[in-house]
Amino acid sequence: MAEPKENVLMEKITSLCKRRGFIFQSSEIYGGIQGFWDYGPLGAELKRNVKELWWSTMTRMRDDVVGLEATIIMHPAIWRASGHVDTFSDPMCDCLLTKKRFRADQIEFQSGNAYHYAGAKDTATGKEVVEPYAVLLAAGKPPESARKTAAQFYAQRGLQTVELIGETVAKVENSQRFNPENGSLLTPPVPFNLMFKTYVGPTATEADVAYLRPETAQAIFAQFKNVHETSRQKVPFGVAQMGKAFRNEVTPRNYTFRSREFEQMEREFFIKPDEAVEAVTAAVATPAAKGHPGEPQPNWGWQLWHQYWVEERIKFYEGIGLPRTTLEEYWQKPEELAHYARACVDILFKFPFGTQELEGIAARSDFDLSQHERCSGKAMGIFDEELRTAFGKLPPQKQTELKDRYYAARLKYLTKMGVSAAEAGAAAQEDADGLAKGQYIPHVIEPSAGVDRLILALLANAFTEVTETDAKGKSETRVVLRFHPRVAPIKVAVLPLLKNKPELAAKARAIFESLRGHMMAFHDEAGSIGRRYARQDEAGTPFCVTVDFETFEGIKDGPQAGVKDTVTIRHRDDGKQERIATSELLPWLLVRVK
Amino acid sequence: MAEPKENVLMEKITSLCKRRGFIFQSSEIYGGIQGFWDYGPLGAELKRNVKELWWSTMTRMRDDVVGLEATIIMHPAIWRASGHVDTFSDPMCDCLLTKKRFRADQIEFQSGNAYHYAGAKDTATGKEVVEPYAVLLAAGKPPESARKTAAQFYAQRGLQTVELIGETVAKVENSQRFNPENGSLLTPPVPFNLMFKTYVGPTATEADVAYLRPETAQAIFAQFKNVHETSRQKVPFGVAQMGKAFRNEVTPRNYTFRSREFEQMEREFFIKPDEAVEAVTAAVATPAAKGHPGEPQPNWGWQLWHQYWVEERIKFYEGIGLPRTTLEEYWQKPEELAHYARACVDILFKFPFGTQELEGIAARSDFDLSQHERCSGKAMGIFDEELRTAFGKLPPQKQTELKDRYYAARLKYLTKMGVSAAEAGAAAQEDADGLAKGQYIPHVIEPSAGVDRLILALLANAFTEVTETDAKGKSETRVVLRFHPRVAPIKVAVLPLLKNKPELAAKARAIFESLRGHMMAFHDEAGSIGRRYARQDEAGTPFCVTVDFETFEGIKDGPQAGVKDTVTIRHRDDGKQERIATSELLPWLLVRVK
Repeated sequence: MAEPKENVLMEKITSLCKRRGFIFQSSEIYGGIQGFWDYGPLGAELKRNVKELWWSTMTRMRDDVVGLEATIIMHPAIWRASGHVDTFSDPMCDCLLTKKRFRADQIEFQSGNAYHYAGAKDTATGKEVVEPYAVLLAAGKPPESARKTAAQFYAQRGLQTVELIGETVAKVENSQRFNPENGSLLTPPVPFNLMFKTYVGPTATEADVAYLRPETAQAIFAQFKNVHETSRQKVPFGVAQMGKAFRNEVTPRNYTFRSREFEQMEREFFIKPDEAVEAVTAAVATPAAKGHPGEPQPNWGWQLWHQYWVEERIKFYEGIGLPRTTLEEYWQKPEELAHYARACVDILFKFPFGTQELEGIAARSDFDLSQHERCSGKAMGIFDEELRTAFGKLPPQKQTELKDRYYAARLKYLTKMGVSAAEAGAAAQEDADGLAKGQYIPHVIEPSAGVDRLILALLANAFTEVTETDAKGKSETRVVLRFHPRVAPIKVAVLPLLKNKPELAAKARAIFESLRGHMMAFHDEAGSIGRRYARQDEAGTPFCVTVDFETFEGIKDGPQAGVKDTVTIRHRDDGKQERIATSELLPWLLVRVK
Repeated sequence: MAEPKENVLMEKITSLCKRRGFIFQSSEIYGGIQGFWDYGPLGAELKRNVKELWWSTMTRMRDDVVGLEATIIMHPAIWRASGHVDTFSDPMCDCLLTKKRFRADQIEFQSGNAYHYAGAKDTATGKEVVEPYAVLLAAGKPPESARKTAAQFYAQRGLQTVELIGETVAKVENSQRFNPENGSLLTPPVPFNLMFKTYVGPTATEADVAYLRPETAQAIFAQFKNVHETSRQKVPFGVAQMGKAFRNEVTPRNYTFRSREFEQMEREFFIKPDEAVEAVTAAVATPAAKGHPGEPQPNWGWQLWHQYWVEERIKFYEGIGLPRTTLEEYWQKPEELAHYARACVDILFKFPFGTQELEGIAARSDFDLSQHERCSGKAMGIFDEELRTAFGKLPPQKQTELKDRYYAARLKYLTKMGVSAAEAGAAAQEDADGLAKGQYIPHVIEPSAGVDRLILALLANAFTEVTETDAKGKSETRVVLRFHPRVAPIKVAVLPLLKNKPELAAKARAIFESLRGHMMAFHDEAGSIGRRYARQDEAGTPFCVTVDFETFEGIKDGPQAGVKDTVTIRHRDDGKQERIATSELLPWLLVRVK
């Protein structure tokens, strides 16, 4: 049977990535290590470009976002507050016969006849083992094979000549309780925490346990007060962070898509609770619209902020070369949401192996800061003078309504977290009274993107095969990586037409030197010009600049007739060539690659 | 007693870093975690600038270096080959009384009288404990206090009423065997491996152990062949990598200087063995000098390459604002070198807490690649056509001489690594024969720098206190961070002179928008202009641009008389101001901040 087409494509991408130095298997010379991937010279540049564009779009070019760079290992209490210690796990079970480990929810569904046993006896010694066991057989298979498997199971428990006890047979439909490879019963599923664990300090006791962060976001919450106090930002504002995160995936898969070490680009955008927004806008006679249409407005509640960020993030992907047609928005259904989330949109990309998540944009309410406040005992709320003033100006009925709503929301959170009814009521009341005085815990919108899967999406989207037939009728298929110039690892290659002409070589070298301080440039003298173009196409270089004999002549006709000192620019995607004055080259390139 | 002056300075720097958002303690709200530090908004930008400058200087701007970005967790065999599993450790010992753990080589030297005991007896039950113990007392102290401590020790071993057995007293000079806090004998030192350990995959057996990399360098060696084959580079060439590394330091100290999670910027520069260089240059009649004076030449052996990189790295530090007077070169003495190293130079910086290493530049011979070849069974050598041809042209005597030297070097390495004499001889002979055929394992020069300690050096070097006295005679001391503009987190602040003049505000905003796409810019309307200047001085912003009423008038005299649309540029370091046309602002800034 032929491989599905998408896997052929993935194999081609994987092979190109290794051959051209985009992605290598980590520790390849030692047989690799599952779920870990390295970026080679071209891959490292591609990744740097993507991260730089995210940072500049999401931080530097915005007045309302600042950056943070926190450590990978943090205090373990952070992961207790976030819920990761208790709930960041996959269900695992082991084969009772071979001990092989499975992810319980990924076992294929099986049907057939289950042969159950109550135990077994050693006919020689009379020794009995009372331990239930079962084997699943496909319908129609002879019971003997189940008995043979069961005998192996009891033999492992110290019986020599096994006599099975209490065989019963039951029909089973769509079960995940049996090993698909040998029919053996599995252990009941047990949660397996996906955080990598280590020990900090010279002793390795339980008190020294620490985790490699499974996400970058929590550091933003933990440092919220420090950032707020030192950055002179006011809510609404965001904190952005990029960095490595680690998840001990049971089954890493789909190349770099789901790996155990990966990089995230996350941003927490802190907003006022809706009750605070309403209080402030209700107190203003005619709230003035701010800035350009579509720009954030002071009267936006969480829903508008959330929609705004979904749209901003899609625009970002479009801006680096993923057309909207390759993306999908998936709005999570109410029953899919985490209990604290109010909405979550996944931005999906059509990968060769299926349509999968690139980024999630979640409206997380005030859950995270509230948790850290409760768990650390440090106040995470802020004081907002404008809110305090506005609240005082509201009619009493409006005040009561807003306080009641805020009270209800806080009570719901506290109750959900297991705080006793009496305590929760008192605390929620305190929070509601605080709101009237201008105090609240900010809510957040969290756009959370994976760098590695984005790189993979860019590679998959750029990957094109081109078949060309030469004059002799011989056809050749080669790869062109159609990266957007903004992300392409090399922006421009400068090529002398011929290597052995010193004036061409010197001129090409001089042009290369004049460009490299402004962008990643490449200089290549080796091989025919056609081969050099092909090499650049395969690396995804959008522009090749060729220095040829015409460079030293004047342009003969057209609008630029008479201009001397020119070069040919060859475009990667259509192979078209144009001639421009060397002096115009840098600005020509800059507007296209930045 | 007053604190030493340098600690006062460190305290001021630490305090400024927290107050202005350069550096926060990791997980501060949970009491912190020792040896881990986060970078706040300004610190994150400072760090990004430093890393970007290193990457561009060491990679993009060079023809002979490419980048790599490998994972933090790699196959554990890498750390066995590198020697880290066996030898990357500090000696640790525990107090026999309190169990407190010490780094054995950092215990203060003590002298006095050691009271030794052979054991103790319970006078009530007659039970005996035969276990030697000792307590150190400063000369002149009464023996009773030693006996009291010893009694506590034996009481912990289950004796109720302790009678000490076999007391002897011995003079002790400069010993590190006793706990300085209570005089108790310590356990003998045991090596404590500094690598953080974790488990990869769903089981946590010894086979699943992995380490967080204690350095980034090894990934470069492990991926050497992949990079060499895909990058079209020829030896000599380098591979650069930046990234996090982890060391479970027993005593992290000096703020961010020695932390447990840190970032490195490392580069392996692969060169030919001297025998290969000699073969090639001996075969050429008159080796032509290449490029500008001081540029690498084909006839350079390891010593010249090593000196070249020391000088290049010092130039780098000068280029980002650390004057040569703040740096020191320390050439390690032969007895200090690792057995495989031929030379190592530390570049030291005069930190407030002492002169300490910023970067090490080691000539590591072919040790690393040889180790990975032996341990992985994968060939790490390369084939050099030019060498093969050259070798064939050499007179037989020269051939023999070079082969003998290469043989001797390889034999020395193999013997040192414990390979048996017979095997080592055969392998070295094969290597020497290979050299004649153009094959060799590259040697390396490794400039290895720490990002975090460089950030700290830049902060310490930039930190200046300025005391100003106002018209009323009131003097105020404030901080100016004199960063080089290339590393300064914010390059330019754009300030309207007054907030409440819409035309000033709009103009300032427009100028800010025109700059921010080119550099990190900041816009600030709040507070008096003096306060805003002071805030920028404290953040290390080299230039403030002020929009004032003159902006809309023509310049009255001087060479630019009559020019309209101008701004004031205020210089951080001397407070001097100059006026330039707004249209000239961007190019004026660009040449100063890039």
